[in-house]
Amino acid sequence: MPSEGLPGSSALSVDELTELGQQLRVDSVRATDAAGSGHATSSMSAADLAAVLLAHHLRYDFDRPDHPGNDHLILSKGHASPLLYALYRAAGAVTDEELLTFRSQGSRLEGHPTPRLPWVDVATGSLGQGLPVGVGMALSGKRLDRIPYRVWVISGDSEMAEGSVWEAVEHAGAEGLDNLTLIVDVNRLGQRGPTRHGRDLGAYARRLKAFGWHTVEVDGHDVEAVDRAYAEARSTQDRPTAILASTVKGKGVEAVADQEGQHGKPLADATAAIAELGGVRARHVDVHKPTAARTLHAVPSGHLDLPTFDKGGDPVATRDAYGQALAALGSARGDIVALDGEVGDSTRTEYFAKDHADRYFECYIAEQLLVAAGVGMQARGHVPYVSTFAAFLTRAHDFLRMAAISRASLNVVGSHAGVAIGEDGPSQMGLEDLAMMRAIHGSTVLYPSDANQTAKLVAAMADLDGIRYLRTGRGKDAVIYGPDEEFAIGGSKVLRRTDDDRLTLVAAGTTVHEALAAADLLAAEGIAVRVVDLYSVKPVDAQTLWTAGEETGCLVTVEDHHPEGGLGDAVAEAYADGRPVPRLVRLAVSTMPGSATPDEQLYGAGIDAESVAAAVRLLVEKVMVR
Amino acid sequence: MPSEGLPGSSALSVDELTELGQQLRVDSVRATDAAGSGHATSSMSAADLAAVLLAHHLRYDFDRPDHPGNDHLILSKGHASPLLYALYRAAGAVTDEELLTFRSQGSRLEGHPTPRLPWVDVATGSLGQGLPVGVGMALSGKRLDRIPYRVWVISGDSEMAEGSVWEAVEHAGAEGLDNLTLIVDVNRLGQRGPTRHGRDLGAYARRLKAFGWHTVEVDGHDVEAVDRAYAEARSTQDRPTAILASTVKGKGVEAVADQEGQHGKPLADATAAIAELGGVRARHVDVHKPTAARTLHAVPSGHLDLPTFDKGGDPVATRDAYGQALAALGSARGDIVALDGEVGDSTRTEYFAKDHADRYFECYIAEQLLVAAGVGMQARGHVPYVSTFAAFLTRAHDFLRMAAISRASLNVVGSHAGVAIGEDGPSQMGLEDLAMMRAIHGSTVLYPSDANQTAKLVAAMADLDGIRYLRTGRGKDAVIYGPDEEFAIGGSKVLRRTDDDRLTLVAAGTTVHEALAAADLLAAEGIAVRVVDLYSVKPVDAQTLWTAGEETGCLVTVEDHHPEGGLGDAVAEAYADGRPVPRLVRLAVSTMPGSATPDEQLYGAGIDAESVAAAVRLLVEKVMVR
Repeated sequence: MPSEGLPGSSALSVDELTELGQQLRVDSVRATDAAGSGHATSSMSAADLAAVLLAHHLRYDFDRPDHPGNDHLILSKGHASPLLYALYRAAGAVTDEELLTFRSQGSRLEGHPTPRLPWVDVATGSLGQGLPVGVGMALSGKRLDRIPYRVWVISGDSEMAEGSVWEAVEHAGAEGLDNLTLIVDVNRLGQRGPTRHGRDLGAYARRLKAFGWHTVEVDGHDVEAVDRAYAEARSTQDRPTAILASTVKGKGVEAVADQEGQHGKPLADATAAIAELGGVRARHVDVHKPTAARTLHAVPSGHLDLPTFDKGGDPVATRDAYGQALAALGSARGDIVALDGEVGDSTRTEYFAKDHADRYFECYIAEQLLVAAGVGMQARGHVPYVSTFAAFLTRAHDFLRMAAISRASLNVVGSHAGVAIGEDGPSQMGLEDLAMMRAIHGSTVLYPSDANQTAKLVAAMADLDGIRYLRTGRGKDAVIYGPDEEFAIGGSKVLRRTDDDRLTLVAAGTTVHEALAAADLLAAEGIAVRVVDLYSVKPVDAQTLWTAGEETGCLVTVEDHHPEGGLGDAVAEAYADGRPVPRLVRLAVSTMPGSATPDEQLYGAGIDAESVAAAVRLLVEKVMVR
Repeated sequence: MPSEGLPGSSALSVDELTELGQQLRVDSVRATDAAGSGHATSSMSAADLAAVLLAHHLRYDFDRPDHPGNDHLILSKGHASPLLYALYRAAGAVTDEELLTFRSQGSRLEGHPTPRLPWVDVATGSLGQGLPVGVGMALSGKRLDRIPYRVWVISGDSEMAEGSVWEAVEHAGAEGLDNLTLIVDVNRLGQRGPTRHGRDLGAYARRLKAFGWHTVEVDGHDVEAVDRAYAEARSTQDRPTAILASTVKGKGVEAVADQEGQHGKPLADATAAIAELGGVRARHVDVHKPTAARTLHAVPSGHLDLPTFDKGGDPVATRDAYGQALAALGSARGDIVALDGEVGDSTRTEYFAKDHADRYFECYIAEQLLVAAGVGMQARGHVPYVSTFAAFLTRAHDFLRMAAISRASLNVVGSHAGVAIGEDGPSQMGLEDLAMMRAIHGSTVLYPSDANQTAKLVAAMADLDGIRYLRTGRGKDAVIYGPDEEFAIGGSKVLRRTDDDRLTLVAAGTTVHEALAAADLLAAEGIAVRVVDLYSVKPVDAQTLWTAGEETGCLVTVEDHHPEGGLGDAVAEAYADGRPVPRLVRLAVSTMPGSATPDEQLYGAGIDAESVAAAVRLLVEKVMVR
C-alpha cells in the first residue's frame, strides 16, 4: 500500500491497520464488559475509521494536550466512548488498567467523554453537538490562531437528523473550512431501529454537497480506502470534507453484527466475542506529533479603557453599554472574540464588529451554532462573548447545558429581556432566561440596571470560570451609579436604607428603577423601604439579604421575568440552609403579555413603580401587621 | 391571464392582483405608522406573494376558522405581521379600524401573530418555527384527518439558517408531504444586513432539492409567475414544494426599497409612501371556501383501562408505567397521538407504537421538529404526547416557550431524569428540566414516584390546558400506591405523619423513596419526620405545605435536579405572598456528576436515604434547637 500518511510517517501496513481496528473493538468489548454497561456495538462500527485516523492522519502530542499545533478530535457520537478510550490506550495515554475502570465511580472514563480527560476538548453525548463545536475550532484555526491544525469530527448517522448539524454544515460550507473533516459512521442502526437513510451514503452526500462540501463515500471497513479518503480530505482546499463511511454496527462479532436490539449494551458473551476478534492485543501507535506552533492573539493586551457614563445624565440602554464595553475590552485584550446571531445592531455587538472585524463572527440566525462555535473557540483559549436576544438563547439551551459539562469558559449575553421591550410582544421577550441560566451548573448570572454597572460587569465576567450570563435591556434606563463604583461578582448594592425600613425591595435590571421610584412614592407617605440592587443573581449576596431580612422582616422581589426560577428563587435559595426566613413576596410577570408600550407592559405585569408601591402598602397595612 | 386558481374561482386579473398587492403594502405602511413601530419593509416584500395566495389559492372560511377543511397559513416570518393583518382586512375578517390598533395595548393585532386571532393557528416571531409546525399540520392532514387541506408557510430567507428548518425539510421530504408548500420571501436583507445567500435562489433550491423537495424559482413580484408557481405546488405529487421568490424588501417605495437599515421600523414619511403606492384601497377578496370535511379520529373513544400495578409488588420504572398507560389511553381515545425522538424503546412509547402504529410518529433525533410537530397536531385538535429524554427536551426549549404563546395544549414527557440514571453520566441526565418546564407560562409539571401514580397522571394530563410536563425515571421504583388511589393535579400525598414530626421532607419522583427510607431510619432513632410526595410540582399543593410548615416548622426539599428552579423553588413559591415562612432546606444535585451506579450517584449528590437522614439529624440537633 502506498503511504497516504503524514510526511515522515512510518506507515502501517493494511494488516497492521486491520489489527489495530480489531484491537479497538476488543478493547471496546472489554471496557463495556467490565462496566456492565455502555455502547459496544457503536464503538465497533467506527473502529477501523478510528484506527486509520490515529495511525496515519492525526497530529497529536498526547504528552502535551495543550500544544497549540495539535489536531482536534471530537467524538460527536459520544456514546461510543469505549472506542475513544481504546484509542487512548493504543496511543499510550491510558493504561489497560484504567481502560477497565470505564463507567465506574471516580473514573475519568465516563459513559460519555468529558474534559476530565485532558485529551477531550469538549463533552459529547448529546448528539449533534460535535460538528457545530468543531466549526468553532476550525474557525479558530483559520481566523484566530492561524495554525494549520485539523479538526476531525466522528459523527453517527442518526445524529445527522439534528438541525444543529445543518446549521454547522451551512456555516462550514460558507466559510470554506477545509481544515474540518466530518467522518460519518453510517452503520444504519439507531437506538430503536434503522435510521431514516439506512446505508444510503448518497442521501447524505447529496445534502452535504448542496451546502458546498466535498464528500467521499467509502467502505468504512476497507482501511486502504479509508486511508485514501483521509488523505483526500487533507488535500482538499477551500471547502470542508465529509467522509461517508458505510459500516456495520457490531462489526466483527457475528452474534451482534448489523442486528437490531444490540444498541447500548455490552456483548452477552464477551469472552467468545474477544476470541472471535482475535484476542486481546497491546499494539502501540506512535501518533504523529504536531508541527511547532504558538497561539498569537490578534492584538497585544493593553490598558482597559471602559466607557463611562454620567450619573444622572442621559439615560442609556444596558445593551448599549454592553456593546461599548465589549468593544473597549476587545481593544485591551487580544483574546476577546465576539459572536452574534445576526442581531448585532440590536445586541450592540456591532460596536465590537466595527473595531475588531477580525475577531467578530457573524453566525446568522442559528443560535445552536452560535453557542457551539463559542464553545469551540474557548477550547482554543479565546474568550468568547456570545450574544443574541435573551428569548432566543432558549434555542441553545442544550448547548449551554453541555458547555457546563465541557467545563467551558463562556460569556453569554441576552438582550431584550422582559416585558420592558414593549410592543414586539411575548415571542421576543426573554421571560425564562434567568431560570434557564441559573440552573446551568456552575453558572454566573448578572443583570445590571445601569450603564456603568454594565460596563464593569462586562469586564469582570471575562475571567470567571464556567458559563457566565449577562442580561441586558432594550430601553434606556437612568444612570444611577458613578463610573468609579465597583461591583463585585456575588455582591449587591443597597440603594435605599433607613433604620425604620418596613420591608426590602429586591430588584435587578429594569425593576431597580421601578423599585427606587416606588420607594420615593412610599417615603412621601411615610413608609420607609429598603431597596437592594441584586445585580448578581447567581451567586447571590446572601449576607446582604440576610441582614435586610432580619432588619426589615420581609423581602419583596420585583422582576421582569416569569415567577419561576428567577430573582424570587435566587432570594429564596439564600435561605436554603434552614436558617429563619423572613416573609417573602414575589412580584413577577405571571400573565401572558401582548403588545403594549414598555410602561403599559410593566404596569400590566404589576412590576412598575405604582404597582410595587401598591403591593407594599397592602403588605404593610394588612399582611405585616404585628 | 389563464386562471390558475381553484376550481370555480373567479380569477382576478393581473391588474387586480397587482392592485391587491399594493393594498397590502399600503395597509402595512398604515398599520406600522399608526403603531409607531413594526416591520413595514418585511411586509412589503411579501405582499404580492400574499395577494396571489389569498385571491387564487387559499381555501379558508374566515367565518369558520375551526372548519376542518380549511387550509392553514403560517406566517413564519412573524415580524411581517402587518402583512397578515392587511390580508385579514382584505378578506373582510378585520375592519380598517381594527387594523390601525396594531401593536396597541389590548389589540388582538400583536407585534407578532398569536392565536388571540382566531385565524392564527400558532404564534410566530421566533424564526424557524413555521415550517416545523407546518410539518405537524401536514402530517395531520395526511395521516390523521385525511382531509385534503393544504399548509402554506411563508418564511423569510434569514430564517433558513435555523437548524429547525432543516429538521423540518428532512422530515417533510422523507414523508412526501405534498400538501405542504413553503414560500420563501428572498428579499436578501436580514435584520442587520445582507443574508448569507443574498438573492441566490439557486443556493436555496439546491439544498431543498437534495432533501427531496420540488422547488420553483420565481420573481416574487410577478403575480402571474407566482400564480403559476402556486398552481404547480398544488399539482405536485408525493413531495413538498418550496417556492423561492426573489423579492425586494420595502418594494414599491423608493426611499426604502432594497435599502439596508430599514428593517423593523415604520416608514419615515408614510403619507408620501402611501401616495407612491397609489393611495389607500378597500379591495375585498372573496376567499375560496374549503370543501366539506369533518375530522374523524382513528378509533372511537371507549373505556379507559389503565394498567395497574401491585402495591408492594415488583418494582416498576415510571417510564414503563408511562408507556403502558399511554398505550391504554390510545385504545380508549382516538384523539391521542404519540411522537418520539428515536428513543421510543427508552421512553417506552414503543408500547403505543405497537398498538397504534397509525397514530405514532417517529421524528428521529430532531427534538425541535418533535415538539413543533406536536404543536401542529394539537392545532388540528389531536392530543399529542411528545417524548424524549428529559435532558434532550432542552433542545426544544424555544419551541416549548412559543407553544405556550400559541396557547397550545401539549403533553410533554421527559424520561431518564436526574442522576438516578447512573453510569451514562451528566450528558444524559435531566437536571435542568424542572426549571425549564416550570418557567413555561401556564405549564403543569408532574413528577410521579410510582407506577400507579404515573398511570393516573398520564390520563389526567390529557385534558388540561397548556403545556403539561411529566418527568419519568429510568430505574425501577417500589410501587407505593394502590391502583385505586387518586391523584389530583395540584395535589400531594402525605406519606408519613405524626403529631410529633420535627420537620417535613418534601420529595417527588425517585427521592420519595429515599425520603421514606430516611424517615424509617430516623423513626428508629426516635426522630419523627413528615414525608410529602409533591408529585404535582406545578401547580403546587400550597395548603398541604402551609400545614406542614406550621406543624413542623421546617420543610426540607429533596430533589434529583439542580438546586435552581425545581422542587425547592416550587415550595418557596408557595410562600410568595408574604405569609410567615417556615425554615427551608434544599437538598439537590449541586455537584457535576460523573459516571457511577444509581445508588452511588444519589449518595454522591447527597439525596439518598442516608444523606437525607444525616441532614435531618444535623438540622434537628444543631439548627432547629429552640
